[in-house]
Amino acid sequence: MRQSKLFTKTRKQFAKDEASINARLLIRAGYIDKLMAGAYTYLPLGLRVLRKIEQVIRQNMNKIGGQEIFMPALQPKENWQATGRWRGFDVLFRLKGNGGREYALGPTHEEVVTPLASQFVFSYKDLPQAVYQFQDKFRDEPRAKSGLLRGREFRMKDLYSFHTDEKDLDVYYNKAAKAYEDIWHQLGIGNKTFKTLAAGGTFSKYSHEYQTICQHGEDVVFQLPNSFQTYNREIAPCRAPKFEQNEEEKEKKDILGKGIIGVKELAEFLNIPVEKTTKTILFQNEKKQIIAAAVRGDYDINEFKLRDVSGSEQLELASEEAVRQLTGAELGYAGIIDLPKQIQIFMDDSIADRVNFEIGANRTNYHTINVNFGRDLPLPEKFYDIKLAKPGDLHPDSGQKYKVLKSIEVGNIFKLKTKYSDAFSLNYQDKDGKIKPVQMGCYGIGPGRVMGSIVEVSHDDKGIIWPENIAPYKYHLINLSKDDKVTAQVENMYKQLTKTGHEVLYDDRDSQSPGEKLKDADLIGIPYRLVVSDKTSGQIELKARNKTKTELVNFKKFISSI
Amino acid sequence: MRQSKLFTKTRKQFAKDEASINARLLIRAGYIDKLMAGAYTYLPLGLRVLRKIEQVIRQNMNKIGGQEIFMPALQPKENWQATGRWRGFDVLFRLKGNGGREYALGPTHEEVVTPLASQFVFSYKDLPQAVYQFQDKFRDEPRAKSGLLRGREFRMKDLYSFHTDEKDLDVYYNKAAKAYEDIWHQLGIGNKTFKTLAAGGTFSKYSHEYQTICQHGEDVVFQLPNSFQTYNREIAPCRAPKFEQNEEEKEKKDILGKGIIGVKELAEFLNIPVEKTTKTILFQNEKKQIIAAAVRGDYDINEFKLRDVSGSEQLELASEEAVRQLTGAELGYAGIIDLPKQIQIFMDDSIADRVNFEIGANRTNYHTINVNFGRDLPLPEKFYDIKLAKPGDLHPDSGQKYKVLKSIEVGNIFKLKTKYSDAFSLNYQDKDGKIKPVQMGCYGIGPGRVMGSIVEVSHDDKGIIWPENIAPYKYHLINLSKDDKVTAQVENMYKQLTKTGHEVLYDDRDSQSPGEKLKDADLIGIPYRLVVSDKTSGQIELKARNKTKTELVNFKKFISSI
Repeated sequence: MRQSKLFTKTRKQFAKDEASINARLLIRAGYIDKLMAGAYTYLPLGLRVLRKIEQVIRQNMNKIGGQEIFMPALQPKENWQATGRWRGFDVLFRLKGNGGREYALGPTHEEVVTPLASQFVFSYKDLPQAVYQFQDKFRDEPRAKSGLLRGREFRMKDLYSFHTDEKDLDVYYNKAAKAYEDIWHQLGIGNKTFKTLAAGGTFSKYSHEYQTICQHGEDVVFQLPNSFQTYNREIAPCRAPKFEQNEEEKEKKDILGKGIIGVKELAEFLNIPVEKTTKTILFQNEKKQIIAAAVRGDYDINEFKLRDVSGSEQLELASEEAVRQLTGAELGYAGIIDLPKQIQIFMDDSIADRVNFEIGANRTNYHTINVNFGRDLPLPEKFYDIKLAKPGDLHPDSGQKYKVLKSIEVGNIFKLKTKYSDAFSLNYQDKDGKIKPVQMGCYGIGPGRVMGSIVEVSHDDKGIIWPENIAPYKYHLINLSKDDKVTAQVENMYKQLTKTGHEVLYDDRDSQSPGEKLKDADLIGIPYRLVVSDKTSGQIELKARNKTKTELVNFKKFISSI
Repeated sequence: MRQSKLFTKTRKQFAKDEASINARLLIRAGYIDKLMAGAYTYLPLGLRVLRKIEQVIRQNMNKIGGQEIFMPALQPKENWQATGRWRGFDVLFRLKGNGGREYALGPTHEEVVTPLASQFVFSYKDLPQAVYQFQDKFRDEPRAKSGLLRGREFRMKDLYSFHTDEKDLDVYYNKAAKAYEDIWHQLGIGNKTFKTLAAGGTFSKYSHEYQTICQHGEDVVFQLPNSFQTYNREIAPCRAPKFEQNEEEKEKKDILGKGIIGVKELAEFLNIPVEKTTKTILFQNEKKQIIAAAVRGDYDINEFKLRDVSGSEQLELASEEAVRQLTGAELGYAGIIDLPKQIQIFMDDSIADRVNFEIGANRTNYHTINVNFGRDLPLPEKFYDIKLAKPGDLHPDSGQKYKVLKSIEVGNIFKLKTKYSDAFSLNYQDKDGKIKPVQMGCYGIGPGRVMGSIVEVSHDDKGIIWPENIAPYKYHLINLSKDDKVTAQVENMYKQLTKTGHEVLYDDRDSQSPGEKLKDADLIGIPYRLVVSDKTSGQIELKARNKTKTELVNFKKFISSI
């Protein structure tokens, strides 16, 4: 490609609201253009990168038996009602058309692929199956400020697999996980991308995310230093580091502290460390049972963990009315002392091992201080882990301190089990003639987000540094000479390189200065720069974008070596 | 691809509301699935065909300097307001998101590509340019009943070109037209697809459509028998065939005919042929001038032609009030006699050469019969062609009778001139430093519609007949034997064919009968069928889908010949 003919130019200016590194660099270099928050055009250079990323993903999906299809983005309301997600999917774009027809704009495709599979799957002989697509998804994200990392319209590869039983699903799930790891390595982010345990939604306890460690990531992961075992914050098992105390038990008493909001304010008011305060919160589960959960004041309650230890499917905060009736006090003064027997109490391990701690007094406006287990309330049979992990926390089994890292979620894999098969009667007949629901899995990667992530982790202050196999071109041939003879030589080099099948961006522009051309080359970030100038006297100056060393090489030797 | 593993199966049943041939065959054969009216999933076989069609188009767009990009479907309301199409584009899908933001779902991309180009085009040196994309478009079609021919979501290739002046636009427009003709030939519909003159919208008098002649097409074109010159009905120049009469002039008189609606009823009431009636309709143009247009009763007025001959930019029907004031009669009784002088009258050539014809009497409830030019009203200086063409009409210049053919519009090319450049200030500086608006063209092809059209024109009662270069696979290898030894031979053939790079669908299914397999093969329509059975004794039976002849060939010879 001749740079003089390229649709785009590098830009110095761009929208000031564009804070993310990936968008700034990709816009300045001419890879993408911002139409509005969360919606970008892929320009010629950008589309080349995107297609290469997609091709790497495609090859690996084909390897695990995926068959490529292409489903509509425009979807009937009825399918989304069938799964309860017409109202339940919070970022769903809904629209109305002619004749009062209502549509969803696909944010994901379970509502399409499941009834589709029911057209072709009847018997155990028709399973397993796997189909996937590359497509633009739509999500009405309230914040879309991270360039390609979070879009209202964004590219997605979504694969769906169909199985006779959970065992077969498990086998395929592991195969897909292996394919994902191959993909990250082939895309050059393998050593920064970690399989991360995450919550699984209503249908499956756990899922996995693939998180690429990155300074400006929107996510946070908790990683064990040696094993690379990585957890999403939401589910990271954790133990609080020991709160050191060296004091005698004091006399328990109730303190009037009206209108104090927040543990920090309370600790200041009581003149105690925040670690000595206790948060007690009452929940109601799907069986209308009341559950009390208590964590140390400097922690938050993790509902995912609390659901798990309490065997609840759903939890919601108990109503003000219920709190008043059960504790005898207004909301905000609940404590784990003297609660009615029907309330099951779950205490986090962070509240153990403390001396003279504070709890709510179950009395409006009052806090009880100098509470001690054994003396003022019985030591529970068991402490639980029901807190949201935070930096400094320890991994419970190994006792190691977590590394807490910012990251970008580039992919995820989910066991859907029979959630969607049940909604759309996707069943099959087994060997014995019995009708059973199909087990499903889904497997997503955002190729645009991957592109943004690669820029986030692979750039310097001059511009982007593309990994070789997804760069828009492998070589950037640059003519710095105004001499006709030299220019004719470079023209000839360009022809030879393209004729032999190499991907070359050729800077043949005649109104740019050498400085501008080299600056543009660094910004665009093509792996190998081949400079010809009056000084290179017929040779080329070769430089890799990710190295500082340049070397003069003979063009003939160079072309025969590549 | 092993057919036993293919995600799809052929289907006997499909939605009864699916009337079009293309949808019926494509659904039955497993190429597409209907999600809802106007929205189809491309299944593995269908996506292969679509991608091949797109690749043919892509290669030809690259040849004329097009650079591929990918623009968002989700577009800000503001851009559509800037061109007046937020309300003016009748099939636009509009939606509302978080924070009250409003979006259009792109039915075309002028509103995105024009401001995009203004980011990179500044000087005459930056022109010409051309960018294109393949993308799903969205249109809220009231009727979407023709399978892939008319979708609410449909694939589109749209190229946009940018030029310094109309001359350069013209040159590129012709280049694009040539590329389009190459595309139709490469897709196997070249001899059925005609460049058709069509109306150009508000910005340009004419555009061109590419119409594929097809029995079940939704469009109608008028074609000259020898030159293949083809016109969209909307603009086809035409002359009415002579209405033969052999009678003396009779006495003109006014007949009371209250409440007669329509020329057919009027002709019956007056007991004259409908050809002797006259339709006179009053319009008002953008300068508030009143124009009367008259055509023979069996024709309709063509507003496109009337605008052209009257030099009007816009025409609307004159109000009831205006008609009453100007003609002295209620709506429905206007005639071309005794009209106020400020009304310009345009008479169609179809009303000439008649004896004793009828006109409105300009008197409520009255019709004047036995009117004759020269005697009752002056012969106009000129008759015009302001009628909508209909079967039987003649081409005015050659006098040849048109062939009237049903067709499908597979592509179109438009000169946008400066309509969108003006709206988005897409300007450039010319050699003399003057700021001028950029001239634009746009060039569309619907790859999905092309796929549907190919099925419409290339099938028989057994199924689809794919042209070789867009077929999902070139060879359909079919094992009809249950014998292990024969099956092992076929397996080996499959391996050899795929290893040597041939595209093969291999029917290795073991629960289908030979009859079912051959029936499926005809339905799917792969160009070459290779059958192995117990009777072919180690050879293969070769049959082209579009021929009836079969021949037994030696596999080794066959594979070395292809």
